[in-house]
Amino acid sequence: MWGGRFAEGPSAIMREINASIPFDKALWREDIAGSRAHVAMLAKQGIVSEADAKAIDEGLQQIAGEYERDGVPEDWDLEDIHMTVEARLTEIVGPAAGRLHTARSRNDQVATDFRMWVRVAMQRAVAGIDAVLGALVVRAEEHADSIMPGFTHLQTAQPVTLGHHLLAYFEMLMRDRSRFADALTRLDECPLGSAALAGTGFDLDRDMTAAALGFARPTRNSLDAVSDRDFALDYLMAASQCSLHLSRLAEEFIIWASQPFGFVKLPDTLSTGSSIMPQKRNPDAAELVRGHAGRVIGCATSLMVTMKGLPLAYSKDMQDDKPPVFEAAGLIDLSLAAMAGMVADSGFDTARMRKAAEAGHATATDLADWLVRQADIPFREAHHITGAAVKLADEKGVALDGLAIDDLTAIDPRIDERVFDALSVDASVAARASYGGTAPVRVREQVAAAKQRLGMED
Amino acid sequence: MWGGRFAEGPSAIMREINASIPFDKALWREDIAGSRAHVAMLAKQGIVSEADAKAIDEGLQQIAGEYERDGVPEDWDLEDIHMTVEARLTEIVGPAAGRLHTARSRNDQVATDFRMWVRVAMQRAVAGIDAVLGALVVRAEEHADSIMPGFTHLQTAQPVTLGHHLLAYFEMLMRDRSRFADALTRLDECPLGSAALAGTGFDLDRDMTAAALGFARPTRNSLDAVSDRDFALDYLMAASQCSLHLSRLAEEFIIWASQPFGFVKLPDTLSTGSSIMPQKRNPDAAELVRGHAGRVIGCATSLMVTMKGLPLAYSKDMQDDKPPVFEAAGLIDLSLAAMAGMVADSGFDTARMRKAAEAGHATATDLADWLVRQADIPFREAHHITGAAVKLADEKGVALDGLAIDDLTAIDPRIDERVFDALSVDASVAARASYGGTAPVRVREQVAAAKQRLGMED
Amino acid sequence: MWGGRFAEGPSAIMREINASIPFDKALWREDIAGSRAHVAMLAKQGIVSEADAKAIDEGLQQIAGEYERDGVPEDWDLEDIHMTVEARLTEIVGPAAGRLHTARSRNDQVATDFRMWVRVAMQRAVAGIDAVLGALVVRAEEHADSIMPGFTHLQTAQPVTLGHHLLAYFEMLMRDRSRFADALTRLDECPLGSAALAGTGFDLDRDMTAAALGFARPTRNSLDAVSDRDFALDYLMAASQCSLHLSRLAEEFIIWASQPFGFVKLPDTLSTGSSIMPQKRNPDAAELVRGHAGRVIGCATSLMVTMKGLPLAYSKDMQDDKPPVFEAAGLIDLSLAAMAGMVADSGFDTARMRKAAEAGHATATDLADWLVRQADIPFREAHHITGAAVKLADEKGVALDGLAIDDLTAIDPRIDERVFDALSVDASVAARASYGGTAPVRVREQVAAAKQRLGMED
Amino acid sequence: MWGGRFAEGPSAIMREINASIPFDKALWREDIAGSRAHVAMLAKQGIVSEADAKAIDEGLQQIAGEYERDGVPEDWDLEDIHMTVEARLTEIVGPAAGRLHTARSRNDQVATDFRMWVRVAMQRAVAGIDAVLGALVVRAEEHADSIMPGFTHLQTAQPVTLGHHLLAYFEMLMRDRSRFADALTRLDECPLGSAALAGTGFDLDRDMTAAALGFARPTRNSLDAVSDRDFALDYLMAASQCSLHLSRLAEEFIIWASQPFGFVKLPDTLSTGSSIMPQKRNPDAAELVRGHAGRVIGCATSLMVTMKGLPLAYSKDMQDDKPPVFEAAGLIDLSLAAMAGMVADSGFDTARMRKAAEAGHATATDLADWLVRQADIPFREAHHITGAAVKLADEKGVALDGLAIDDLTAIDPRIDERVFDALSVDASVAARASYGGTAPVRVREQVAAAKQRLGMED
Repeated sequence: MWGGRFAEGPSAIMREINASIPFDKALWREDIAGSRAHVAMLAKQGIVSEADAKAIDEGLQQIAGEYERDGVPEDWDLEDIHMTVEARLTEIVGPAAGRLHTARSRNDQVATDFRMWVRVAMQRAVAGIDAVLGALVVRAEEHADSIMPGFTHLQTAQPVTLGHHLLAYFEMLMRDRSRFADALTRLDECPLGSAALAGTGFDLDRDMTAAALGFARPTRNSLDAVSDRDFALDYLMAASQCSLHLSRLAEEFIIWASQPFGFVKLPDTLSTGSSIMPQKRNPDAAELVRGHAGRVIGCATSLMVTMKGLPLAYSKDMQDDKPPVFEAAGLIDLSLAAMAGMVADSGFDTARMRKAAEAGHATATDLADWLVRQADIPFREAHHITGAAVKLADEKGVALDGLAIDDLTAIDPRIDERVFDALSVDASVAARASYGGTAPVRVREQVAAAKQRLGMED
Repeated sequence: MWGGRFAEGPSAIMREINASIPFDKALWREDIAGSRAHVAMLAKQGIVSEADAKAIDEGLQQIAGEYERDGVPEDWDLEDIHMTVEARLTEIVGPAAGRLHTARSRNDQVATDFRMWVRVAMQRAVAGIDAVLGALVVRAEEHADSIMPGFTHLQTAQPVTLGHHLLAYFEMLMRDRSRFADALTRLDECPLGSAALAGTGFDLDRDMTAAALGFARPTRNSLDAVSDRDFALDYLMAASQCSLHLSRLAEEFIIWASQPFGFVKLPDTLSTGSSIMPQKRNPDAAELVRGHAGRVIGCATSLMVTMKGLPLAYSKDMQDDKPPVFEAAGLIDLSLAAMAGMVADSGFDTARMRKAAEAGHATATDLADWLVRQADIPFREAHHITGAAVKLADEKGVALDGLAIDDLTAIDPRIDERVFDALSVDASVAARASYGGTAPVRVREQVAAAKQRLGMED
Repeated sequence: MWGGRFAEGPSAIMREINASIPFDKALWREDIAGSRAHVAMLAKQGIVSEADAKAIDEGLQQIAGEYERDGVPEDWDLEDIHMTVEARLTEIVGPAAGRLHTARSRNDQVATDFRMWVRVAMQRAVAGIDAVLGALVVRAEEHADSIMPGFTHLQTAQPVTLGHHLLAYFEMLMRDRSRFADALTRLDECPLGSAALAGTGFDLDRDMTAAALGFARPTRNSLDAVSDRDFALDYLMAASQCSLHLSRLAEEFIIWASQPFGFVKLPDTLSTGSSIMPQKRNPDAAELVRGHAGRVIGCATSLMVTMKGLPLAYSKDMQDDKPPVFEAAGLIDLSLAAMAGMVADSGFDTARMRKAAEAGHATATDLADWLVRQADIPFREAHHITGAAVKLADEKGVALDGLAIDDLTAIDPRIDERVFDALSVDASVAARASYGGTAPVRVREQVAAAKQRLGMED
Repeated sequence: MWGGRFAEGPSAIMREINASIPFDKALWREDIAGSRAHVAMLAKQGIVSEADAKAIDEGLQQIAGEYERDGVPEDWDLEDIHMTVEARLTEIVGPAAGRLHTARSRNDQVATDFRMWVRVAMQRAVAGIDAVLGALVVRAEEHADSIMPGFTHLQTAQPVTLGHHLLAYFEMLMRDRSRFADALTRLDECPLGSAALAGTGFDLDRDMTAAALGFARPTRNSLDAVSDRDFALDYLMAASQCSLHLSRLAEEFIIWASQPFGFVKLPDTLSTGSSIMPQKRNPDAAELVRGHAGRVIGCATSLMVTMKGLPLAYSKDMQDDKPPVFEAAGLIDLSLAAMAGMVADSGFDTARMRKAAEAGHATATDLADWLVRQADIPFREAHHITGAAVKLADEKGVALDGLAIDDLTAIDPRIDERVFDALSVDASVAARASYGGTAPVRVREQVAAAKQRLGMED
């Protein structure tokens, strides 16, 4: 019955399914920090002697040194990082090591370790976002006047500035940043001291351990503290939304880099060439960022499904919280770094962008707006007149501003020479100066505001 | 080729796939409010005349009255709620109605409408959560002393109080509440005036419309404003996490209501009986709440997948933002209401809970802790001694506190009579008085704190 | 506490959360067919009298007529379609109606009804796929020689034929078809007669009802029969994969329809124009098909999460099986119909496609292959030589076949005049005549094979 | 700007995001097998010389030996397993190694490698399912007569046999088995020879390589062949459904193992004890199996999202196909093995199960059925009478069959002594002998049929 790698039968299966050390060894720094804070508190409260506490603390420091140097040994029989550390501590310190586990259990221990790990991951995500934000602002300032076609439905709609386009992503990523910041606030409670599920009869100072581990306060309910993985879900949710934004930017780089568009030359370092087709510069990094959105969302789904319907308190299912978080963290860190590089180092072919913006009557809306403003025509009627003008331009094979004034007045006598001031792409973008609009003057204002929001020097 | 309901061919398909009026008519209040704010601003800025603005505003009010009374007509040829309203306005006001659409487009219009709808849904979720929180606090206070088995792995682990158990959900739902609150803060920007994608050349006062529609400020980037659905995702993410918490509580009610547990008698109003099996009180509402978690998560997945990889600016895919949000909102509102009722009105069989807590040597940890405290034995060794005591109790068929003192001293001479003070379930819960612990005194403190957090009178 | 629409309190909540009639009324045809088959069998087995059976059957037929004409009444107090039908039957037939529910329960009844509904949905999906397959074959034959750039990474890679490209989707959709066919085979068992969960003591002829309802056989295990929703998941999984394929084709139509590409003019009926920008033909239908993939996947996720961890037998959570299936069915039907129309009626700008294929040294691989074949150079070395040729062509601003023979021999003396036969896009596609390759001769063969697989006349 | 591990800047990012060797080295066996088949075919077709082919083949065999012995070296600069093998081959064979890549590309190479890997994973899943199926049949036979409460809504509904309950999972897993079998059929086409995307000009014998690698035929369309990951999705979908079934069985084991139920004693090898609470036998393996359902579904979601909206042909996003498949394969293999062990080795407390079945008037339906059969009362009326009897039994504090005959005739005079034959749990299960019912005679028949379906000896 037990073929293959489980020839030994159920005990081999159990050993493998139960062991979390292959992945939770990533928590070793947090585990040791948590134990040091715990034993210091136990000593201060007189629950363990100063001598024992000192021995334990020194033992833990020694273990940290060993792991830093040699990595964490992976012995499946010790199951997890907590037992791995404790077993080594016992070797070093002897039976006194057994006092460390007073008034705690693996349930509050892992909840604390993992929370600390996720806290760092959130901070790293914020830093990664900041790098992209910084790059966006720099390039937006550089291209505050660069004209490109604005698309809706991937159809040329109205001219916009490249700086404005890049700042749209600035807004998205600022929201991502705020999501991680909110999650950090919510995470800021320390589970340590909740013990197995019910708290403990020892006279703990939970404020002390919370402070030592950098938390604002201890958690309020021990059952919740050992059963809660909201902080991990918060991380995955924020990462999912961020990865979606990056996937949109990646899609644009990929389309812009295609030969028919030719809007962008991706940095050599973030694309792969081909010895045979030198013109081919595959946007690998952008594609991987786009693909990674799938995996990050998969990680979020994973933990949601796992948590569904679990009764209190700790259930072993919750051991499946770490792999998706670790995986998503690797992916989002890498995606942010790649996108920062892509934004910072891509070469934009502004001449080609401008040419594309000039094609396709992208200023037709400007003609309609002009009619409303100058001739007080209701917008819906102005739309209709504009349609006739565009049709005529198509028939004559010219751009809108290539029509003669007589052609235009024939369509509607209320049109006059001044209209041509509205029909160039430069006039069009300059005109859209409403707050939040694409006009270079507005873009520069937003660049200045963005620098201020980021704390960058202007 | 075109069988069945598309016998007319592509035009029938397009009519059906393109029409959003069957669902976006839910936005009629927001659409009319947005239009009224827009035209008031256009008038103030001198972009439309006061007379036209007045006619339009009165027309819009008339339409609101009609919809309130008769519902929104569903004419697929008018595609969406925006065209439906505008078409009716034209009937009422005549060509001047065409001035309403000056300096806006359906892209910023729908972004504004939907944002307002989601804002209300978030506020409703907060209110729904508050109802559950209130019920939890009341029942927790009532059961601050009621003893039940605390489970890990659904195995009896240590005695806890029912009040403590209920307050664990209080913590979860407070976090849910904060997620909706954070999302409301992030949502608080008004897209109106972003026009199709690039802003507009008209001299708008976007602060005025933002304020009129209850937003803190206008959005900063027009391309982002029409392409952003983060607020909808924020709602779905918060709803998903909330539904996960509710699914956990539902699972507990279902298990507790099973005959072998018998911890709870569900309210008649929230369960279904059976004419044939009167003892059977199916926990339908709890099961539906648990099941709804699947659908809410499905809604979140839906919008994430839809948004993945969309280039700027508006793409029609984004029309698929509304059905999942509308569906999730219905489900989460109903789930919260059902859970508030379940918590408020369930009858807890505290005698049976207590009896279950007394079975299974649930106070074994207390014996170990006593050994650590009284005899200064390292915890790991104390564990070992306790194991021997439990084994003996099992052999004798008694509870731990049913062992004779001689039996215990035979196991370890450091044990004395005082140990019995630690071995009852009452002593056990009373002892766990560390901050966040299950002791009644701690539970009452947390109840008081919870009331304060909710602004309830004590 | 009970604000808003639940002012009446828990009973109003229960009424709303429990009622499935708003959606399960879609099952009325199946419910009545199932009841008719059931009562006929009961009569044959002597469990109800012929007279009662006749009255019940006529009553059911009368109800079918009423529903067909007037729709199904939606009375929430009757909860679901089963009680709705039975209540009406009692009005018509009197107490004898109560005999219909002998030896069955709502659990096996709904399992049977829903299975029949899903069976039809699967058959409809197959028909919808066939329409797309048919259109693909017709257009592939038409464009067996039309040359376009083949992309990898959305970078021009090698010339291919449009017919070949379209047939790639033929293969995808044939796999989708087989998934629905497999699912139909797996679904082909009738749950009716499984009763509440355990079977029944009445002497049923389950083969008779199974046959009457078009199933191959009755289900083998009554507990499984009432707890199983695999058939619904099978449908959602197959629909998800199909929607992914359609999303890929939709993405291509959207990109191809953009101005910089200009490869396709979408059918008027499946795009929306703009009165103001006549050149703008928004690919709305394609975008909605792409967006719908998100919702279909959301539906699959929904049911997976709902089913996770449900103990046997029937749990009320399973009532949440229908909304996602009904929603996905509407979306996939519409997406298939839209895509069939898009494929059948789009206008391909083959001149522009060819021009794009000729740009970008798309035949560089052909030069490398020529070197391998004619000069017996290892492929990796041939690649290197080709790189030099492409670089030179770029410097001279010509296409590869625009280089002089002297230029080429200077790069490598083994090159001779015959090479030019390999460097045109026509030569390139004609050469790729390996099985499955893009050569027109291969495409025509595959078109013929495809017609045969579809049972189309050649 | 580039802090932390990307201090070197974009090139370090690219190196890390682009390298697939950390995970695709798992494909080394398939990669080498594919290369050997390819070069043998090239030699037979005269495309490479016999001597070169021999050298290459021997080199590949040598590499296989090295990897088998020492593992695959992980050099990120070589990017993936294909380049890793080729680089080593060049060291061994010299420039002739460059001939191996004739008429293929990494695109068809990886598609072939991964397909072969997934094929083995599918076969392994079938074997894993077979182990569970075998265990279920053995235990079902053993417990064909063991009575337990059948639940709906986790409420005691009717008595069933444990054998019948276990066979419900037999049916589920047989469907899972058929899904993997269907997927194997669909996967059975070889992409090798599709080259980069368009096929090749070399005169290949694709049937030869397909056969050599164990495929039924070559793929029909080269663009599809390199862009298709349906086989991976098929695997993930089948694995998701299977993991859902296992999660349901796991949930039951967890609930059954709780103290209030006490239906099952889990095998020592698949649970964890506690030195302190010997009565505590945590169902860790069952919980992990339940939790793993979340991760498997997350993997399926991941690949669906990644594939959404990808244009043809190969895009780098598709490199993200492997991690979710590899992860899911590990999880499903382990889950199946754990469940086989759990089913085979758990001890069922049949006395306790029987006692639970006797509580709660589980035979009330039998009374109603008796009334229908013996007294020809319409079922709905019989239900009503039964309700009265159950109410009376509750008042008297006895089971239904503990009521006196006078009590029953007082409720309805049509009841007589024979009714008691129907009211024991034994009579109840014996009566439910309709096809698929829970009667022991039916269970034994299904066991025999199951053995036949599995090819087990009876």
